[in-house]
Amino acid sequence: MQHQVMGYDRAATMFSPDGRLLQVEYAEKTVRLGSASIGFVCSDGVLIVADKRIIDSLLVPESSIKIYEIDSHVMGTSAGILSDARVLMERAQLLAQQNRVTYDSEVDVETIIKEIANAKQAFTQYGGARPYGVEVMIAGINPDNSGKLFVSDVTGNYLGYRATAIGENDEKIKEELRKEYKQNLNTDHGIKIAFNIFKKVFGKEFDISRFEVAIIKAEDQKMRRYFGDALLKLLK
Amino acid sequence: MQHQVMGYDRAATMFSPDGRLLQVEYAEKTVRLGSASIGFVCSDGVLIVADKRIIDSLLVPESSIKIYEIDSHVMGTSAGILSDARVLMERAQLLAQQNRVTYDSEVDVETIIKEIANAKQAFTQYGGARPYGVEVMIAGINPDNSGKLFVSDVTGNYLGYRATAIGENDEKIKEELRKEYKQNLNTDHGIKIAFNIFKKVFGKEFDISRFEVAIIKAEDQKMRRYFGDALLKLLK
Amino acid sequence: MQHQVMGYDRAATMFSPDGRLLQVEYAEKTVRLGSASIGFVCSDGVLIVADKRIIDSLLVPESSIKIYEIDSHVMGTSAGILSDARVLMERAQLLAQQNRVTYDSEVDVETIIKEIANAKQAFTQYGGARPYGVEVMIAGINPDNSGKLFVSDVTGNYLGYRATAIGENDEKIKEELRKEYKQNLNTDHGIKIAFNIFKKVFGKEFDISRFEVAIIKAEDQKMRRYFGDALLKLLK
Amino acid sequence: MQHQVMGYDRAATMFSPDGRLLQVEYAEKTVRLGSASIGFVCSDGVLIVADKRIIDSLLVPESSIKIYEIDSHVMGTSAGILSDARVLMERAQLLAQQNRVTYDSEVDVETIIKEIANAKQAFTQYGGARPYGVEVMIAGINPDNSGKLFVSDVTGNYLGYRATAIGENDEKIKEELRKEYKQNLNTDHGIKIAFNIFKKVFGKEFDISRFEVAIIKAEDQKMRRYFGDALLKLLK
Amino acid sequence: MQHQVMGYDRAATMFSPDGRLLQVEYAEKTVRLGSASIGFVCSDGVLIVADKRIIDSLLVPESSIKIYEIDSHVMGTSAGILSDARVLMERAQLLAQQNRVTYDSEVDVETIIKEIANAKQAFTQYGGARPYGVEVMIAGINPDNSGKLFVSDVTGNYLGYRATAIGENDEKIKEELRKEYKQNLNTDHGIKIAFNIFKKVFGKEFDISRFEVAIIKAEDQKMRRYFGDALLKLLK
Amino acid sequence: MQHQVMGYDRAATMFSPDGRLLQVEYAEKTVRLGSASIGFVCSDGVLIVADKRIIDSLLVPESSIKIYEIDSHVMGTSAGILSDARVLMERAQLLAQQNRVTYDSEVDVETIIKEIANAKQAFTQYGGARPYGVEVMIAGINPDNSGKLFVSDVTGNYLGYRATAIGENDEKIKEELRKEYKQNLNTDHGIKIAFNIFKKVFGKEFDISRFEVAIIKAEDQKMRRYFGDALLKLLK
Amino acid sequence: MQHQVMGYDRAATMFSPDGRLLQVEYAEKTVRLGSASIGFVCSDGVLIVADKRIIDSLLVPESSIKIYEIDSHVMGTSAGILSDARVLMERAQLLAQQNRVTYDSEVDVETIIKEIANAKQAFTQYGGARPYGVEVMIAGINPDNSGKLFVSDVTGNYLGYRATAIGENDEKIKEELRKEYKQNLNTDHGIKIAFNIFKKVFGKEFDISRFEVAIIKAEDQKMRRYFGDALLKLLK
Repeated sequence: MQHQVMGYDRAATMFSPDGRLLQVEYAEKTVRLGSASIGFVCSDGVLIVADKRIIDSLLVPESSIKIYEIDSHVMGTSAGILSDARVLMERAQLLAQQNRVTYDSEVDVETIIKEIANAKQAFTQYGGARPYGVEVMIAGINPDNSGKLFVSDVTGNYLGYRATAIGENDEKIKEELRKEYKQNLNTDHGIKIAFNIFKKVFGKEFDISRFEVAIIKAEDQKMRRYFGDALLKLLK
Repeated sequence: MQHQVMGYDRAATMFSPDGRLLQVEYAEKTVRLGSASIGFVCSDGVLIVADKRIIDSLLVPESSIKIYEIDSHVMGTSAGILSDARVLMERAQLLAQQNRVTYDSEVDVETIIKEIANAKQAFTQYGGARPYGVEVMIAGINPDNSGKLFVSDVTGNYLGYRATAIGENDEKIKEELRKEYKQNLNTDHGIKIAFNIFKKVFGKEFDISRFEVAIIKAEDQKMRRYFGDALLKLLK
Repeated sequence: MQHQVMGYDRAATMFSPDGRLLQVEYAEKTVRLGSASIGFVCSDGVLIVADKRIIDSLLVPESSIKIYEIDSHVMGTSAGILSDARVLMERAQLLAQQNRVTYDSEVDVETIIKEIANAKQAFTQYGGARPYGVEVMIAGINPDNSGKLFVSDVTGNYLGYRATAIGENDEKIKEELRKEYKQNLNTDHGIKIAFNIFKKVFGKEFDISRFEVAIIKAEDQKMRRYFGDALLKLLK
Repeated sequence: MQHQVMGYDRAATMFSPDGRLLQVEYAEKTVRLGSASIGFVCSDGVLIVADKRIIDSLLVPESSIKIYEIDSHVMGTSAGILSDARVLMERAQLLAQQNRVTYDSEVDVETIIKEIANAKQAFTQYGGARPYGVEVMIAGINPDNSGKLFVSDVTGNYLGYRATAIGENDEKIKEELRKEYKQNLNTDHGIKIAFNIFKKVFGKEFDISRFEVAIIKAEDQKMRRYFGDALLKLLK
Repeated sequence: MQHQVMGYDRAATMFSPDGRLLQVEYAEKTVRLGSASIGFVCSDGVLIVADKRIIDSLLVPESSIKIYEIDSHVMGTSAGILSDARVLMERAQLLAQQNRVTYDSEVDVETIIKEIANAKQAFTQYGGARPYGVEVMIAGINPDNSGKLFVSDVTGNYLGYRATAIGENDEKIKEELRKEYKQNLNTDHGIKIAFNIFKKVFGKEFDISRFEVAIIKAEDQKMRRYFGDALLKLLK
Repeated sequence: MQHQVMGYDRAATMFSPDGRLLQVEYAEKTVRLGSASIGFVCSDGVLIVADKRIIDSLLVPESSIKIYEIDSHVMGTSAGILSDARVLMERAQLLAQQNRVTYDSEVDVETIIKEIANAKQAFTQYGGARPYGVEVMIAGINPDNSGKLFVSDVTGNYLGYRATAIGENDEKIKEELRKEYKQNLNTDHGIKIAFNIFKKVFGKEFDISRFEVAIIKAEDQKMRRYFGDALLKLLK
Repeated sequence: MQHQVMGYDRAATMFSPDGRLLQVEYAEKTVRLGSASIGFVCSDGVLIVADKRIIDSLLVPESSIKIYEIDSHVMGTSAGILSDARVLMERAQLLAQQNRVTYDSEVDVETIIKEIANAKQAFTQYGGARPYGVEVMIAGINPDNSGKLFVSDVTGNYLGYRATAIGENDEKIKEELRKEYKQNLNTDHGIKIAFNIFKKVFGKEFDISRFEVAIIKAEDQKMRRYFGDALLKLLK
C-alpha cells in the first residue's frame, strides 16, 4: 500500500525499492480474472479445453471462438485481455506462415511461444506502453510428431508442461491435474479429466455450452474444434 | 474513486492495482452516450438500422449519413466519437480496395473488423495517444454469400453476432432482440423488428426522420440506403 | 470544476471519468469566440458571407482576406485560431493541386473537407500536440455542377448543409436561417438573407465594411470575391 | 491568476478552460518588450525605420544591424527575441535563394511571410518546443513592381498593411500612422513621418544614433541601408 | 528513506545527491531473490550447477531449463527476472551464430559476456526503459582450449572468475567456495563441491530434483546437461 | 522568486507570465561565473587576452589552452561551461574545414559565429536538452584582410565589436575599454591596454601566469599563441 | 538543500537558479567514491598505477583488469561507475582501430580523450539519459614519441597533465605529486613515487595485491601490464 502512495506502481519500467515491477503484477491480476483453460499433452495428440464464459443466443458460435488455430499443427488460448491475446495470436500465425514460406516446413512449437514471450518481455522493459495483460497457452505437434504444451506468463517467461491450466482458479485446477494426469492417457481420456475438474470447480454453475474443445492429433496434425452440439456428441 | 485520487486513471497504458485499464473504461462511457444502431443477419442479406439523432432542416441528408459503405458488399456504423469512427471506416475502405487490387476479389467481412479491432487494441497499449472512443458494427456478405455481423468494442476485442445493438440502451435493445430474433427471418421482417424495438425504447420521442436503414442483399451484394421519404416508402 | 482539480483537462489525449475530452471542449470555446460566417448552397452556385471583424485603415484589404480560394471551384472560411485555419487551408490547396496533376480533374468538394477533418481528428487522438482550435466551412461546385457546403467541427467530424453558420452567435444565426432558407433561392437572394440576419444579430454594431462575400457560380466555377466598394455595388 | 495555479500556462500545447493558449500569450509579452519598428508602402518603394535601442561605442555598427536583407528586393525586421528573429530571417533567405535557383525568378513577398508564419504556427501547436517569441515585419517589391508590407504575430497569423508598427508602443505609433499616412506619399515623406512619430513617442529620449533605415525602391529593387552619418545625411 | 520521499529513486537515469543510481540498486534486489547457481573453471572443462527452484510434476523437465546453451562451447545461467535472462541469452546465441558465419570460427567467451554487459549498461544510462533485473553467469571453452567463467552484474560490469556463485545466498556460497576451490580440480570434483555447498546452505530443504547441471569439456567442447535421473546417475 | 515556486523555471522551453525564459537566464549566470577574456580588433590584426584561472604545476600548459584555433585565420574563446565551449569550437573547426574543401577558400568570420549562434538558439527553443551554458567570442581576419570580433550570448544572439569582454566582471572591463579603446591602435598597444585593465580589476590577485594571449595578424593570417615565458617575453 | 526541495536536481538538463547542473555534480560524487589511479609522463614513457580495490581469490586476475589497452600505444583507466568506463574504453578502442584502417597510422592520444570527452558532454546536455558517472585518465605515446597524459571529468572537459590522480583522495595524492614530480624522472622512478604516495595515503590498509601497473615505453610503444607476482618482481 505504501508503494502506491509513493508511486512505484505508476510505470511499467520502474522497480520498487524491494525489486518488484508493480505494473506487471497488476497485469497479472487481469489474467486471474480471465476465464480458465486446461491443456494436455496426450499419447495421441494435444488438447485444450477452454471456458468461453459468454452464453448469448445472439452470438454466432463459429465467430466467437476462444481457441485460435495458429497453424494446422499449433493452437493457442489465453486468459486476460482478449484483444491483447488476439494480437499475439495473429503475430504467431504470421510467424508460422513465414516459416512455411522460408523453410518449406512446419514451425517448431517452442518457436511460437518464444515469439510471444519475447514480445511480452519487451513491453515490461521499454517505456511508453503497458505490458500485455494476458497469459498464453500454446499446444501443438512438432515435426517429430511429439506433442508440446507451453504457457507464457505476463512477464514473458515460459515453461513446458505435460498438463496445466491458466485463468481463474488455475491453482485449484492444477492441484486436481497433479492428481489425475497420467503420462500415457489419450485425448479422449484427457477431455474427460478436464470436464470432471471443471465440474468440480464450477459446481452448480457448470454449463457445457460455455466450453470449447480443440484437439490436434499426431497422426494427421489437423486442429479439430468442438462446441455446442458437436461437443455434446464428442463427450458421449 | 480512490483510483482517481491515486491517478491510476490518467494514462491509457497504466494498470490499476486491481488490473483494470481505467482510461479504456472511460472511453466506453463515451460509447454508451452515442446514438444506437441495430444490426441483423437475415436469410436474404444483412441489415443495419441506425439512429442519427440529429434532425436539422439545414442539413443535407445525403451528406450526413451514419452508415458507411466500406465496399459494395460491406458496411459499418458506430457509437461514440464520430470522427474516430470516420477515420476507422476510411481505413477499412482502403483495406477493401487494396484487397480488390491485390487479390482481385472481395475482402472477407471478418478481415475488415479485424483491421479495425487491431487499430483499437494498439491505442490501448501504446502511450502517447488515447484509445479510440468508438464501438464499431460491421455487416456484410462474404464471397460465399453468407451474411456476417461483427461488433468490436473499445478495447479492440470483437465478436460475431446474428443480431445485436450498440450505443445508448444497447442492453435493453439486446434483451428485446433475444426475444424477437428468429434464425430465418428476412430483411423485411428484420426492419420491422428493429423499428418495433426502437419505438418501445424511445416511446414518445420516437421519430422516423432520425433513422437511416441500409441493406445488403446476398443476391446482388449491393448496399442500399434508405432515409427520409425513401425510408417511409420502404416501411410500407 | 472537479475535473479541473483532478487534472483530467490537461492533455488532449485523456478521457475524463464521464468519457469527455476536455481539451477538445476548450478548443471549441476558442471557436465560439471567432467572428461569424454564413454559407449557402443556392440554385446557381455557392456563397459565403464572412465577418472579418477588423476595420483598420492601415490594412490592405486585398491582403487581409477571411475567405480562402482553395481551387477555382472550392473556397473555405473559418472561426477560431486564424493561423490554424491558414495551415489547414494551405493543406487543402495542396490537395486540390495534386488532384489536378494526378487525375487531371477538379477535386470533389467532400474530399477537401475530409482531408481537413482527418487532420483535426488526428490532433485530438495523438499526444504531443494540441487540437486545431478552428471550425472550418468549405463551399464549392462539384464536377457534376452541384453545389456543396460542409462544416467540420473541432473534433474532426463534418456534416453537409444547405445553409449554415459558424463562429460567434452561430446558434442564433442558424435559427434565422431555418426560417429564411428556401430550397431554390439564388445567390443574389442568399446574400440578402445573410445580411438581413447579420443586421438583426449585430444591431447597431453592424458595419458593412467588416464583411467579405465570395461566390462560386455553377456556370463558370470561378470564385468571385467582394469587399469594400465592390461589395457595396453588389448589394445594390 | 487562477489559470497559473491550475497549471494551464505550463505547455504551449494546452488550452485553458476558456480556450486560450497562455504560453503563446506570454510569448507576446516578450514581443511588446522589443524595440519598435515602423514600415511603409510608398509610391516609389517600401521603407522600414527601426529602433536598434543599443548605443555602445564598442559595437561595430555594420555588424549590429536590426533590418535583414532577405533578398535584394525583400527585407525584414522584428520585435522580441533577437536570436529567434535571426533564425527565421535565415530561413527566409534560404527560401528566396531556392526560389531563384528553382524558378529563376524573384520570390513573391507574401511567400516569404507565409514561410515565417507557418514555422510560427507549428511551434504553437506541436509539443516539445516553445513558440517563437518574435513578431516579424517583412517589406519588399513584388515582381510586378508593387510594394508589399506584412506583419506576422506570435501565433503565426499575418496581415498585409499600407503602414504599420511592431514592438513597444506599437498601438500608440499606429494611432499616429492612421492620422499621418496618405496613400501616395513617397519614401522621403515616409521617413519624415516615421521620425516625427518616433520623436513624439520617445520625447526627450529620442536619439537619432539608435536608428536604422532601409529602403527598397521599385525602380531598381535594391535594398539601401542608412545609419550613423549616412542616416543624418539622408535626413537633411 | 529520504531519497524515496524526494523521488531520487523513480528513474533509472537519475543520480541521488550522494551519487547513487537507486533504480539500479532496486534491480539488484530482484537478483538476490533469484535462485542460486555455482560455476567452476576446472582442469578438464567448465561447469555450472543451477537451482531451478521449481518442482512441479506437471512440468516437462526438458522444457523448463535454467542453463542455456549459447553455442556448443558456451553456456549461461542467471539470477533475477527470468524473461530478461532469456532475452539476453538469445542475444548471445545470435552473436555466437553470427561469429561462426562471419569468421568461420567459434566466438570467444569474453565477447559473449561483453555483449550482454553492454546491453545492460545501456539500460542503466538511457531513459524510457528499466535496467535488466538479472545477473548473468557465462561459462565456456575458448578456441585455445582454456576454460572461462564470467559474471556480469546489473550495472553491466563483469569480472572473470575461477569459481563463483550468483543469486540468493551468493555471499555465503562464495565464502565456502574460497575454502573448497583448488586450482586443478576436475569437473567430477567440482560437482561434488557444489552439491556439498548447496546441501550446507539449504539444510533440510535441499532436494536434488530442483537442480540442473551442465558441463562443457575442453576435449570435445560439447555442452552436456543433467537433471532428474541422469543427474542422479552422474552423482554416483 | 514566485516564478520558482510556480515552476516557470523548470524547462528551457517555457515562457514565464512576463515573457521571460528563466532557464536561459540561469545559464547566463553560469557564464558570469566563468573566467574573463578581452578581445580587440586592431589596425594590424585581432587579439584575445584570456584568463585561464587555473595554476597547477602538474598541468602541461600546451595541453590546457583557453583560446582555440578554429582555422589559421580565426580563433575563439569562451566563458561558462568549458565542455560546452569545446563542442561548439569543434563544430566551428569542422565548418571552417568544410568551407576550405567545398569552396577552396577561407571561411568568413561571421559565418563561424552564426553557426555557433544558431546551435545555441535551437537549444533554447527545442525541448529535451538544456541551453548551452557558454558565451563565445570569435576573432579573425576576413579574406578581405579586415579584422572581425563577434560575441554570441547564451540565447544565440550575436553582435560585432571593436573591442569587448566576456565572463566575470565583463561590465567593469567594458567600462574601461570604452575609455581606453582607440580606433587605430595596433596589437602591441591592445595587449598593454588589456593587461592594464586586468590588473585594475584583479588588484592584488593579478598573476601573469594565469593568462594566455593569441594574435592573428592581417599580414600573414597565422594565429600565434603566448603563455608562460613566451608571454613574459612578449610583454617586454 | 533548497534546490533539492525545489526539484532543480532531478534532470541532467536543468540549470539551478545559480547556474549549476546538479545532476552532473551528483555524478561527480560517484567518481570520488571510485578507487584511485595515478598517471605519469616520464622521460622514457607513460605510466599508470591503479588501485583495483578488490581482492578475491576466486577472481582470475587476468580477467579483472582496471587499466584498458586502447591501442598498443594508448591505455586508459577510470574512477566511478565501472560499466560506464568500459563502454567509453570500447568506444576509444574502436576509434583507434578505425584510425589505423583509415589513415594507416596510430591515433593521436588527444584524439582519444576528445572522443571520450565529447560523449560525456553530450550526456550532460541532451535529456533522456544520465551523465556518464566516470572520470577517465588516458596515457599514451604520440607518433612523434612524446608521452601524453589526459584526464576528462564528468562534464566532458579535459586537461593535459605531467602527472595526476583520479578517484578517492585525488586531491591529497595530487598534493604529494606536486612535491615529488620532477620533469625528467623515468618510469622506474615514477612507479616508486606512486607507491610511496599510495602507502602514505592508505596507511595500514595498503596492500600491494590490490594494485595494477601499466607502462608504455616510447622506444617500442607496447603496453606492459604488471600485477600479482609480476608486479612484486618489477618493484624489486
